Amino acid sequence: MSISALPSQIRQQCRTGELKAPTPGLALGYVQANLVVLPYDLAFEFLLFCQRNPKPCPILDVTEVGNPEPKLIAPGADIRTDLPRYRVFRQGQLVEETTDIRPFWKDDLVAFLIGCSFSFENAMLNAGLSVRHIEEGKNVPMYKTSIQCIPSRTFSSPLVVSMRPLPAHHVVRSVEVTSRYYKAHGSPVHIGNPEVIGIEDLGSPDYGSAVTLRDNEVPVFWACGVTTQTAILQAKPEFAITHAPGHMFVSDLKDEELFI
Amino acid sequence: MSISALPSQIRQQCRTGELKAPTPGLALGYVQANLVVLPYDLAFEFLLFCQRNPKPCPILDVTEVGNPEPKLIAPGADIRTDLPRYRVFRQGQLVEETTDIRPFWKDDLVAFLIGCSFSFENAMLNAGLSVRHIEEGKNVPMYKTSIQCIPSRTFSSPLVVSMRPLPAHHVVRSVEVTSRYYKAHGSPVHIGNPEVIGIEDLGSPDYGSAVTLRDNEVPVFWACGVTTQTAILQAKPEFAITHAPGHMFVSDLKDEELFI
Repeated sequence: MSISALPSQIRQQCRTGELKAPTPGLALGYVQANLVVLPYDLAFEFLLFCQRNPKPCPILDVTEVGNPEPKLIAPGADIRTDLPRYRVFRQGQLVEETTDIRPFWKDDLVAFLIGCSFSFENAMLNAGLSVRHIEEGKNVPMYKTSIQCIPSRTFSSPLVVSMRPLPAHHVVRSVEVTSRYYKAHGSPVHIGNPEVIGIEDLGSPDYGSAVTLRDNEVPVFWACGVTTQTAILQAKPEFAITHAPGHMFVSDLKDEELFI
Repeated sequence: MSISALPSQIRQQCRTGELKAPTPGLALGYVQANLVVLPYDLAFEFLLFCQRNPKPCPILDVTEVGNPEPKLIAPGADIRTDLPRYRVFRQGQLVEETTDIRPFWKDDLVAFLIGCSFSFENAMLNAGLSVRHIEEGKNVPMYKTSIQCIPSRTFSSPLVVSMRPLPAHHVVRSVEVTSRYYKAHGSPVHIGNPEVIGIEDLGSPDYGSAVTLRDNEVPVFWACGVTTQTAILQAKPEFAITHAPGHMFVSDLKDEELFI
């Protein structure tokens, strides 16, 4: 699939099994989303966790219990087949990766679609700001921090952040450009010294790959959707499904529709 | 209580029964909130309704089930005693007004605190914009519209709006000033012709009082928290409690803390 494919074409190719690859760069300009599927009896506590932590967990859509259609962001889509790859968890343990979760679907499941950083990265590139991991052809470096999310009764997690190095004279502009993407992690959570938020070594990210930090560059940190996955690993729910890393749901929303 | 009282003092006077009056103008500059209390088995569907309709229903805090303390916006407060007046509903019918809901409290109740227009009205006044119902010493005029909120499985409602007339040259400024208050209804939902949103007669509001609309003034409409009350009346839950109109919860947050 190409950069100019429509979201519905991407989803169709996932459905037929033609597309099983990661989605960065596909249908550029359309909003991609993290997926979390949980049983209804955990839905309130998870929604509350997201509501309390909107920077790492910005909710874009929540399906009706038992219904796999994300009506608000992609009418007619089916989250059971329309992502390229999924992860299935039991008691917080990864038990399977699959490209079709219909065999696991039940009437008590609720799907949460959560905003992702691709939206603001496109905006950064359009504004002439560099996105180092794209330049270097890597996955973004992500780190667990010493910042605790506000827990709900069932879910808690350290805040996970992604990092993008910027020359000092671009840092303020990066705040301005990303802050309007409130539904895609929004403005940075920290600028500068990583130790202040409990990161000891930028060269050893907890997820993704390290990227080059040049002289006169400042590390800038944004809240990251992986936080929802660590919250699920900690809560050890009986059953959960997520997208596989980088294999996102491509919605019909345009990035600019996330503006508030 | 005075304009300069601290929120904790207002709440203490509610608790002792000294204050039973409406709260507009008290502790000016601090965020006031609508209250909705529901049983846990409706909490997910109500939170989802609010999440889907953030303009009328901006969530500021949600208490843990059975716990009456709104920890995020007023640590140490007790929503059972710290508002001046409450309404108790059974099967969607108002059965009682009271100043203390401890006799009704149960371990399965969840309280939702929802942003209110007082925050952006203060900002409008500070920006030199007129707020007609305050000038005229009335309650703000509110209208049911033909716009339907996005429903959840249990909750649905027409969007209720409040109206403030502004001279044409102040309309754009009113959008700018209120839009940063995303957690207090944010920017207007409609400017100008009331018929477009199903309002036939500005002189006959569904709630509150009509105000003067002068020559060269434009009616400007904002989403209104009364929408949550109409959603509850329509859903007819077995049990619910809300604040009495105008008798809000005064939180420790400052208006500026609602900025995003």
